[in-house]
Amino acid sequence: MGKPRPSAPTISEVAAAAGVGRATAARTLGGYGYVSAEMRDRVLAAADELGYRTNQLARSVSTGVSHTIGVVVADISNPFFGGVALGISEVASARGFDALVLSTAEHLDEEISAVNVLVDKRVDGIILSSAACAADSTAHLQLPNEQGIPLVLLDRLIPGLDLDAVVIDNRAAARHATSELIRAGHTRIGFIWGPPVAGRIEYRRELVEAARRNLWSDGERLAGYLDALDDAALPLDLDHVMLGEKTEARAYEAVTRMVALDAAPTAFFCTETDALTGTLHALRDAGLSIPQQVSIIGFDDSSWAAVMNPPLTMVRQPMLELGRQAAELLLSRIDAAGEASHAVQRELSAEFVERASVAPAPDER
Amino acid sequence: MGKPRPSAPTISEVAAAAGVGRATAARTLGGYGYVSAEMRDRVLAAADELGYRTNQLARSVSTGVSHTIGVVVADISNPFFGGVALGISEVASARGFDALVLSTAEHLDEEISAVNVLVDKRVDGIILSSAACAADSTAHLQLPNEQGIPLVLLDRLIPGLDLDAVVIDNRAAARHATSELIRAGHTRIGFIWGPPVAGRIEYRRELVEAARRNLWSDGERLAGYLDALDDAALPLDLDHVMLGEKTEARAYEAVTRMVALDAAPTAFFCTETDALTGTLHALRDAGLSIPQQVSIIGFDDSSWAAVMNPPLTMVRQPMLELGRQAAELLLSRIDAAGEASHAVQRELSAEFVERASVAPAPDER
Repeated sequence: MGKPRPSAPTISEVAAAAGVGRATAARTLGGYGYVSAEMRDRVLAAADELGYRTNQLARSVSTGVSHTIGVVVADISNPFFGGVALGISEVASARGFDALVLSTAEHLDEEISAVNVLVDKRVDGIILSSAACAADSTAHLQLPNEQGIPLVLLDRLIPGLDLDAVVIDNRAAARHATSELIRAGHTRIGFIWGPPVAGRIEYRRELVEAARRNLWSDGERLAGYLDALDDAALPLDLDHVMLGEKTEARAYEAVTRMVALDAAPTAFFCTETDALTGTLHALRDAGLSIPQQVSIIGFDDSSWAAVMNPPLTMVRQPMLELGRQAAELLLSRIDAAGEASHAVQRELSAEFVERASVAPAPDER
Repeated sequence: MGKPRPSAPTISEVAAAAGVGRATAARTLGGYGYVSAEMRDRVLAAADELGYRTNQLARSVSTGVSHTIGVVVADISNPFFGGVALGISEVASARGFDALVLSTAEHLDEEISAVNVLVDKRVDGIILSSAACAADSTAHLQLPNEQGIPLVLLDRLIPGLDLDAVVIDNRAAARHATSELIRAGHTRIGFIWGPPVAGRIEYRRELVEAARRNLWSDGERLAGYLDALDDAALPLDLDHVMLGEKTEARAYEAVTRMVALDAAPTAFFCTETDALTGTLHALRDAGLSIPQQVSIIGFDDSSWAAVMNPPLTMVRQPMLELGRQAAELLLSRIDAAGEASHAVQRELSAEFVERASVAPAPDER
């Protein structure tokens, strides 16, 4: 049991001290309806003097607006989501909303709990980057809707669900990056990382199917890689696609295995920061120099990429902008107060940042 | 105005369906007091069938425990705080608590708003990394205490405030790192970054005073740097301490200025990630090679540091452990339900990770 709360001044006491009616005091302190500037000043001065603190909960019950939004991300320690959360906070803050961020560690049960907590805390809206890969594991996403709380998906669509969303054009970005490696003469390009299947994959359709059962954003990046190979009529070598658990250590193992192949990749496209640092470790330990012996392109730009030796060519995701646009879309839904309208899906473009980690393929020189 | 909420089954309806008294249903659904296993099972089955969702708010009113904690960090896009938040979430989640994270962008007014929101949302406890530099700007930290909500400071002490806290031994870590540079023969060591004063500083006591008015953690790192100089009886060169706004761009400018000095530093100690990447940019643009011409040690280890060329020697902060211990301390306070006891301050040690960015000073070879 918590300590009993000390008693606080009531709205009626504030109204009496301000010499206004209780409704005026309630409207002022609750932040809803019309109050003249003079009345508002008197109420706020009295509230201040009495030490009255607006109770956001009470306010949410009476007006439906608590001036908070909830943000559910898969991994708060990933700088990508840190940047996105910053973008959300900026826009929310400018509109007088606080953003409450919960991290799910990519676990669906923690995501379900997070959504329940936010609904119970009466947030006005939710931005969510879901760990769900398919519509059949998204019953929890109906809950906010049932409670009149708008929901915007961030970074990851869920195939089969027609919800508001702001995402990056992952497929086009991956296609472009892979094409740049092909343009430099590379025909054997390692893809780090692919879907987290445990065993071996024998056929392209198995790979595509595995990607479809995985996170949408990761699947799109693989699709973009395959598009680029197809564009150039290059064959897919399944030994060049990392499978299995998505960790830096597994990326290290996969690249170490690939560079020992007879037909070793001469270039790598790494679709996450951990995939990239794992690859860089493996290339160093294999004694391969970048870009002389191996070219590399990463995803998820960080300030580190520019100070590497050589500076790394990267696909830069507009993290802040992604967060800002998701917040703007959500706030517009809150303003519209549940008016029915079609789902809006915005797609932002990633930026290709050319630096010095791509060189002509060794065979071509 | 939000949409009206659809009506939900009441506790009385659940009690009737379960064939138990209302108090038993309330105790079960509220998670407080004694309920036999058989009764609990019946209530939960009935609740499940009726679609009753525990209302965390109602529960917090009746039991004082909402099973949520609030986390206020200075900058959620900083991977340091991302790692800390992950450590907090892990421990909280294992105990059935959800962690709600708010980011303040180092603005005191946003910190005040965040604390108010968390108190209003009836969290059971708060972990806070404050932007406040002195006790006179911490009136808002009394509020949780007045409401019986325990508060634990994280990463940053506030001189003059006797509150629970979990921090890193910044001073010892900085002293050790600087001493390693001195041991390698360096006598001119750039310090990136110092306090954010605008003008020039003429005397050591002014520097110490400026650091005291700044964030505690940053001041401690400067104090450790000065300790190491004193240990070796080396003079302080005020031209080797970066002043001004703490940004990557300003670090770049400061280092560019320092390497052009007649008595240029032969080594740099960088106390933040942005300080380090700014320094690395400046050294590259000045054509200086690491570690042959300039040695460097950073703070805030990231996976990137190990794949740099050369791999960087770093002071690694135990981010996850910092978060975990703060969460454990807070949960123990919540368990103790406001029993008076002395403030607990835990200090964790940073780890010195030796890699390849420190070499003997050029003069000494």
